[in-house]
Amino acid sequence: MHAEVISIGTELLMGELVDTNSSYLGSELAKLGIDLRWVSKVGDDFDRLKGVIDQAWRRSDVTLTTGGLGPTSDDMTRETIAAVLGEEMTVQEDLLEHLKGLFAGRGTPMPSTNIKQATLIPSAVTIDNPVGTAPGWWVEKDSRLIIAMPGPPRELDRMWTHEVSHQLRERNPNVAIVTRTFKTFGISEGGLNEMIAPLFESENPVLGIYSKVDGIHLRAIATARTDIEARELIGPMEAEIRGAVGDSIWGEDEETPESQVATLMKKRGQSLGIMESFTGGLLASNLAEVPGHREFLRGSIVAGSRDVLQGMGVHRELIDRFGEASPEIAEATALAAREQLGADVGVSVTGLSTGSEESGAPLGTCYTGFAVGDDTSSVAGHYPTRRLRLRGRAATHALVELIRLLSG
Amino acid sequence: MHAEVISIGTELLMGELVDTNSSYLGSELAKLGIDLRWVSKVGDDFDRLKGVIDQAWRRSDVTLTTGGLGPTSDDMTRETIAAVLGEEMTVQEDLLEHLKGLFAGRGTPMPSTNIKQATLIPSAVTIDNPVGTAPGWWVEKDSRLIIAMPGPPRELDRMWTHEVSHQLRERNPNVAIVTRTFKTFGISEGGLNEMIAPLFESENPVLGIYSKVDGIHLRAIATARTDIEARELIGPMEAEIRGAVGDSIWGEDEETPESQVATLMKKRGQSLGIMESFTGGLLASNLAEVPGHREFLRGSIVAGSRDVLQGMGVHRELIDRFGEASPEIAEATALAAREQLGADVGVSVTGLSTGSEESGAPLGTCYTGFAVGDDTSSVAGHYPTRRLRLRGRAATHALVELIRLLSG
Repeated sequence: MHAEVISIGTELLMGELVDTNSSYLGSELAKLGIDLRWVSKVGDDFDRLKGVIDQAWRRSDVTLTTGGLGPTSDDMTRETIAAVLGEEMTVQEDLLEHLKGLFAGRGTPMPSTNIKQATLIPSAVTIDNPVGTAPGWWVEKDSRLIIAMPGPPRELDRMWTHEVSHQLRERNPNVAIVTRTFKTFGISEGGLNEMIAPLFESENPVLGIYSKVDGIHLRAIATARTDIEARELIGPMEAEIRGAVGDSIWGEDEETPESQVATLMKKRGQSLGIMESFTGGLLASNLAEVPGHREFLRGSIVAGSRDVLQGMGVHRELIDRFGEASPEIAEATALAAREQLGADVGVSVTGLSTGSEESGAPLGTCYTGFAVGDDTSSVAGHYPTRRLRLRGRAATHALVELIRLLSG
Repeated sequence: MHAEVISIGTELLMGELVDTNSSYLGSELAKLGIDLRWVSKVGDDFDRLKGVIDQAWRRSDVTLTTGGLGPTSDDMTRETIAAVLGEEMTVQEDLLEHLKGLFAGRGTPMPSTNIKQATLIPSAVTIDNPVGTAPGWWVEKDSRLIIAMPGPPRELDRMWTHEVSHQLRERNPNVAIVTRTFKTFGISEGGLNEMIAPLFESENPVLGIYSKVDGIHLRAIATARTDIEARELIGPMEAEIRGAVGDSIWGEDEETPESQVATLMKKRGQSLGIMESFTGGLLASNLAEVPGHREFLRGSIVAGSRDVLQGMGVHRELIDRFGEASPEIAEATALAAREQLGADVGVSVTGLSTGSEESGAPLGTCYTGFAVGDDTSSVAGHYPTRRLRLRGRAATHALVELIRLLSG
C-alpha cells in the first residue's frame, strides 16, 4: 500500500508555520509498513488544491490531508474533495446537533459559518474529533482512500492515534512491523556509527541513526508476518547494540529523560528539589510536563545572580572562591536545593548560559551537582553555543546523569 | 513571478528529518514578492523525482530544489533535471580541478563517485558553494528557471543569502516589499477577524491573520516600486487596525513578550522576581532566552506544593482559606517573590496545570499576580487543557499583562 500526504494552508507556503504534520505522518506510516511516496504543501486556493487532491486520488492508494477543515471561507478541503469525486455536500442533522452542543457547552451560539463542519458527501463518513470542532472525513471509493484530518497538531495526533492508524492497520492484517528505539547520550553520531557499522548493512531489521535533542537514537524496524516473528528478528541486533554501546543507553522507545526520572523517584518514594542557574528554569519546566510530577517534584529555585544563590543558602565565600561554574559550587548548590525545598534528593545546574564577567568558566560550560542520600557528586558539561539548545542539552544531561545515579 | 519548491530525500518522507528548508524558502520568497504556489517532498527515486521536476518545470516560473546533490547513487537531482530538459551531463574540467583541490585540502584523495558533482548541462551554470562540495545549478531555458541547491540547511542558507536571492531580486528590480506584523493577545482569531473583516479584502497591502503561541498576529505585506511607497501603503491599514484593536496589540514585527519585558525593565532600571507554580519554571525559562536577562531577572521560585509556597513566605492560613488558584494568593505570592528574591517587581503564576485535589479551582485555571511599586493586582486566566500549551499560554499572558502594567 502506498500513500501521499497533502498539508493544506497558505501559512505553510508563507513560511509562517513549519509543517511538522507531514513528518509526523511519515514516521507513523513507516511503522505501519505503508510506503509514503509524495508530500505536497498547497495553499488555500480552490483550483490548486483541487489539482493536488485530484492528482493524489489518481496515483495513490491512500491520500492523507491535514488542514483546511475549519469554518472560514479559506478552509476548502471538504469542498475540493467533493469536487474531485463529483459528489455533493449535504448537512447532516446529527452532526449539526453535536456541533451546536459543543458551542452551547462553551456558552456561545454557533456562528453560521461553522455549519459546513457538519457536512458529508455520500462516499464519506466522519472521523471523531473530541478535541476540536472539525470532524475528519474518511472517504472510500473505488478501493481508494482519502482521509481528511485537521491541521492543529494536537487534533491530528489524537485522530491519528485513536482512529485512523487502527483502521489502516486492519487493512494490512498479514504484515507486522515492530520498531525498537534505543536512546543514547554522551557519544557522537559519528562515534556510534563507527562502533556498530556492520549493523547498518542489515536489511531486516533495518537500522537508522538519528540525532535528537536528548541524544543519538538508534531505531530498528523489523517486518514479518506476525509481531512475535518481527520481535525475534530484532533480538540479535539488540544484543549486539547493547554489547557495544549499552553503557550509553539511558532509555527505550517512548521513554524520555523526564519520564525515567519520574518513574525512579516515585519508585523510591522520594522527593526532588532543584536549584538551577544555567538552565534558567528549563529543567523544572521539562519535569513539569510529566503527569503526576507534583508527587515528587518539590520545586526549583532559579537563581539569576550570586546574591540569590547566597540568599538560598550557598555560602558566599565558596562562590567567590570557586566561581559559579565549578564542581564545588554545583555540589553545594545541590545540597542547598535539597535543604531549601525540604526534598530528599537535590540537583543543581550551575554556570552561565550567556556571557558575563561574573563567571570564571567559558560560556557554555556548566556543572551539574547531585545530592543523593549521603553522597554528593557532580559532572561537567560543555555544550554548543546557541542558547536554547545549550540549555536544553544541559537539562537533558542533568536528567540522564540522575537516571544513572538513581538506577545504580 | 510564481515559484515551486521541491525538497528531495527519502529521509524527509520517513519523518526522520523535518523539512525546514521549504519553510525557510517560503518566508524568503515572500520577502521578494515571489508567489510560492506548491511545495513537494519526494524521495530518492528516479522516476518519481523526474515526474515531480517535470511537472514543476511545466507549471512554474521558478523551481527551487533542495537536496540530492551529494556524491552517492541516491543523489539524483542533476540526473533528473538533465532528463527533464533532454540535455546531456558532461564533466567540466575546471569544476573537477576545484573539487580535487577541496579534497586535497582535507588530505584525502577524491572518491570517484564525487566526479558527478563536477558536471553541467548546456543550460546550467554553477552556483558557488564555499561551505560544501556540491555546487548548485542555475538552469535557465525558455525563460524558466530551475535552481538546484544543497539540502544541508547551512549550505542552503549560505547559497540562498549570498547568491540566489540577489539574482532573483535583480529580475524584479522595480518591486519593493514591506512587511509589518501587529501582535495581539486576549482576542480570539474569530473575534479579531470579525472586528476588522473589511481589511482582509485589501489586495495591496494584503493582510494575513496567524494564530501563534504568543497570541494572534496580523501581518500586512505591501508591494510597490520603492520601499517608501510600500510603507505608505501600509499606513492607513495600520491606523485602522490600531483604531479597532489597538488595546490588544502588545508588540510588532520581531518583538516578543520576553524582549518587551526586558526592554521595559531595563529602561526602569528595576529587577524582577518570579514565583510560579502553574507554569512550573517555563516563565523564567522563556525570559532566560533574552540576551542580557541577568541584568534584570533575579530569579524564580518554582513551587511544586503548598509547603514550598509557605516556606517561601506565603502564609499558610491564606493558602488554606483562598486556595492556590485565587486572586488573593496570586497577589500574596507576587509580594513574596519580590521579598524572597530581593527584587523591585514581583510576578506570580498560581494554580495547578495538572489535576489535583489540593486546588479548589478547575484544572487550567490560574491567577497571575503582580507587585509593581505600591500596587498589587491580579488577572485570571483560563486556558485549553493540553499541558505544554496551557503553561505556555499562562507564561505569555503573565508577560503581556506585565508589559501593560509597566508601560502604563
